[in-house]
Amino acid sequence: MASDKKQPRPKAVTPKGFQDYFGADVTERAAMLARIAAVYHRYGFDALETSAVETVEALGKFLPDVDRPNEGVFAWQEDADWLALRYDLTAPLARVAAQYRNDLPSPYRRYAMGPVWRNEKPGPGRFRQFYQCDADTVGAASVAADAEICAMLADCLEEVGIARGDYVIRVNNRKVLNGVLEVAGLSGDDKHAERGIVLRAIDKLDRLGVAGVRALLGAGRKDESGDFTKGAGLSAAQADVVVGFMEARRESGAATVARLAELVARSQIGVAGVAELEEIATLLSAQGYGPDRIIIDPSVVRGLGYYTGPVFEAELTFEVTDEKGRPRNFGSVAGGGRYDDLVKRFTGQEVPATGVSIGVDRLLAALRATGRIGTQAAGPVIVTVMDRAHMADYQSMVAELRKAGIRAEVYLGNPKNFGNQLKYADKRASPVAIIAGGDEFAKDVVQIKDLILGAQIAKNATLDEWKDRPSQYEVPRDALVAKVRAILDGQG
Amino acid sequence: MASDKKQPRPKAVTPKGFQDYFGADVTERAAMLARIAAVYHRYGFDALETSAVETVEALGKFLPDVDRPNEGVFAWQEDADWLALRYDLTAPLARVAAQYRNDLPSPYRRYAMGPVWRNEKPGPGRFRQFYQCDADTVGAASVAADAEICAMLADCLEEVGIARGDYVIRVNNRKVLNGVLEVAGLSGDDKHAERGIVLRAIDKLDRLGVAGVRALLGAGRKDESGDFTKGAGLSAAQADVVVGFMEARRESGAATVARLAELVARSQIGVAGVAELEEIATLLSAQGYGPDRIIIDPSVVRGLGYYTGPVFEAELTFEVTDEKGRPRNFGSVAGGGRYDDLVKRFTGQEVPATGVSIGVDRLLAALRATGRIGTQAAGPVIVTVMDRAHMADYQSMVAELRKAGIRAEVYLGNPKNFGNQLKYADKRASPVAIIAGGDEFAKDVVQIKDLILGAQIAKNATLDEWKDRPSQYEVPRDALVAKVRAILDGQG
Repeated sequence: MASDKKQPRPKAVTPKGFQDYFGADVTERAAMLARIAAVYHRYGFDALETSAVETVEALGKFLPDVDRPNEGVFAWQEDADWLALRYDLTAPLARVAAQYRNDLPSPYRRYAMGPVWRNEKPGPGRFRQFYQCDADTVGAASVAADAEICAMLADCLEEVGIARGDYVIRVNNRKVLNGVLEVAGLSGDDKHAERGIVLRAIDKLDRLGVAGVRALLGAGRKDESGDFTKGAGLSAAQADVVVGFMEARRESGAATVARLAELVARSQIGVAGVAELEEIATLLSAQGYGPDRIIIDPSVVRGLGYYTGPVFEAELTFEVTDEKGRPRNFGSVAGGGRYDDLVKRFTGQEVPATGVSIGVDRLLAALRATGRIGTQAAGPVIVTVMDRAHMADYQSMVAELRKAGIRAEVYLGNPKNFGNQLKYADKRASPVAIIAGGDEFAKDVVQIKDLILGAQIAKNATLDEWKDRPSQYEVPRDALVAKVRAILDGQG
Repeated sequence: MASDKKQPRPKAVTPKGFQDYFGADVTERAAMLARIAAVYHRYGFDALETSAVETVEALGKFLPDVDRPNEGVFAWQEDADWLALRYDLTAPLARVAAQYRNDLPSPYRRYAMGPVWRNEKPGPGRFRQFYQCDADTVGAASVAADAEICAMLADCLEEVGIARGDYVIRVNNRKVLNGVLEVAGLSGDDKHAERGIVLRAIDKLDRLGVAGVRALLGAGRKDESGDFTKGAGLSAAQADVVVGFMEARRESGAATVARLAELVARSQIGVAGVAELEEIATLLSAQGYGPDRIIIDPSVVRGLGYYTGPVFEAELTFEVTDEKGRPRNFGSVAGGGRYDDLVKRFTGQEVPATGVSIGVDRLLAALRATGRIGTQAAGPVIVTVMDRAHMADYQSMVAELRKAGIRAEVYLGNPKNFGNQLKYADKRASPVAIIAGGDEFAKDVVQIKDLILGAQIAKNATLDEWKDRPSQYEVPRDALVAKVRAILDGQG
């Protein structure tokens, strides 16, 4: 290209799949994360903030036979190294746990919150950068660590504003499922394909019901469209074991545990898994976390292939209306479990670990959907500019308001058109506007306009009501702060 | 590479030039930023969080005649697009101000905090990812916007813990300097090189003193090593004008302004700049920000080439001792000014803007250096495990402590070696350890060990003192929380 060729103007666009967040979308998320961090901290978890950038090698996404690392991450080459943006917060924890293993306390409880990046095809509601919020315990083999994380998760949900009764944390154990598969005769190395079909079938219980799952466990299932999904080919007796597992939940945790114990009595790993579930339930109940908050639920599967012991999932149980006005169960907002190959990739040594990840965007959406955040107007009080020569006076008004803790600003655009100033106040969702021109300064008063009341009156009131409830007041200059405070407190 | 070749273990290393932050390093920064955000918010600034990734085109770093974007950013190609990590928070603001110009209020006050990335050679204390914390007003031509930002900066410093008197905000104006250059006969297009030398010379006043700067304004200067720096070749009369400018600061802002007005009386732009300085001083003083906090100081230069009007810089005036124990002035922690080509790159339309950037790491270091943060032990109370069978009892102890707002955890490592548990408590900087075994459970008591007092006694006390001040107490089980609270409050 010729260097003197005039460059076209750059396009001002957010890169595809990325998002900009404004105002309350930023501060409400930050406030929610701060509350969660406070709970994590109270449980003895320490903050960890790794860099956004990792070596591709440490992330474990390097495919040696292609030019370029896995498409799932954003990666680039720096000199000899491939670097990439982290795709989750667990891989960096693994790297840190290995790198600092001689300095970190053991067990190491850490929490991390921050953006992660995924190089995926952008789609509706699917973004290439989003927040995660994790807590993990590295180096504790005891299921007391899993129980602790379940209790902490319950505390987090209540702390951010999910009422008790509006959520439930379901706990299951991968070992119990392994035991069930063993009892059903599916534990052999040659049964890999069948196990996969069984796991996927269990995961579809919600959607297909028992009959649908049973079809998938057997010969297969034809869906409404006529498409056929091949089944696992289990005998009726084998399928009974699996269905028995899915339906093992009883009224009380103890009864559920007893039923599971029956089911896996012939499997050593299954018996161990049931014992772990029992221990978790005991520990939680000792801390006051009963079945109103945390239950044993054999139907929880969630990517069980990754986990090696307890797994858990937090579900919001209330209904919300979706964008189309239909009611639906809010569903899962967090999950986690025990996994053991965290540090092994780096050191060769197996280190037990367990952790939870809270779906930041989903939890935030839940709080918004239920009106638990985002209902208060947070706009500033606007001091309008009637006369530029009085700018210093307007500035001292906002200084007084701010000193009283009230969010306030002087209009700093071109003040000539007063209508523009009120439009600006509207755009900022300002609760109150202050007006003072030559007359007011001469009389040492200010006009205070209640914009929220004004908007209500404009929308709803008859002329009579309007007369009785003025939305604009003239007060002495030295009563400015007190009057604004009264309006903000709803005592006009 | 053969796909069955065994992969070597990945190295667990932080990528070169990046850092991991642990515990208090994360939480103290977050707390400081939250305090600053609260001040920004009170001034009517709205949060903005753009994605970490921008198109290279929007960042304005694309060099059309090389294969790869500017080395200063981390960039990579995705399909047809070049993407890059943002290198500051101003470029994304420019993009947003252009992209959403029809939706955003005008003026648009926004703040942003978050990491930025620089693809620079890593060096001591120089990192490739670090935090910025900016506030800018886009679309306000009035210097009231600059004055507001200076006042806000003062409030921010006091809010995070810098006492009044321990900082000063210096304000200057690029137009005044332009006027001085004009009066000195250096405003012509053919004087570009001379102007550069003059600006750099002024910037060295602190280090070289007036005589050194005067040498650089004239023929040149030989430094101690004998190296010669060519000067601007100004006549004595021309140099007098520039030196007069540098030395224009007087006891009061009004006197400084009067002196500057004399110096630039023959320059239209210089006179305009002085008027702006005067207006800023008036507005600030109306809000109660006097010369104990904000002063007019003609010696502030800071990259003036970039700015078009007022510039400002916050300096901490107290001494700290550096790593080598030498006292030094802490120096600058924030700066900013007015710039006008923000949105123009995208839209062709000039939009006035002014803003400030707080040096997050430097300010945090200042707070640490003066002991204003980081002095309190934040470690958790550790409930040790004497008998695994009592795990549920230990868990209910921590649950009680947490309910009282006390950070607490059960030791979750292998409990066999009790010494390891106390070593762990030490590593966590725990203030208190709880001990309960079979005897204690039988008597319904717990042992509470004051670890901070214990460490002090071990270090300093004679045997007699040790006897008088036990650091371990036996209390009834139901007095656990109260006793721990008393120890944490220093009332053992």
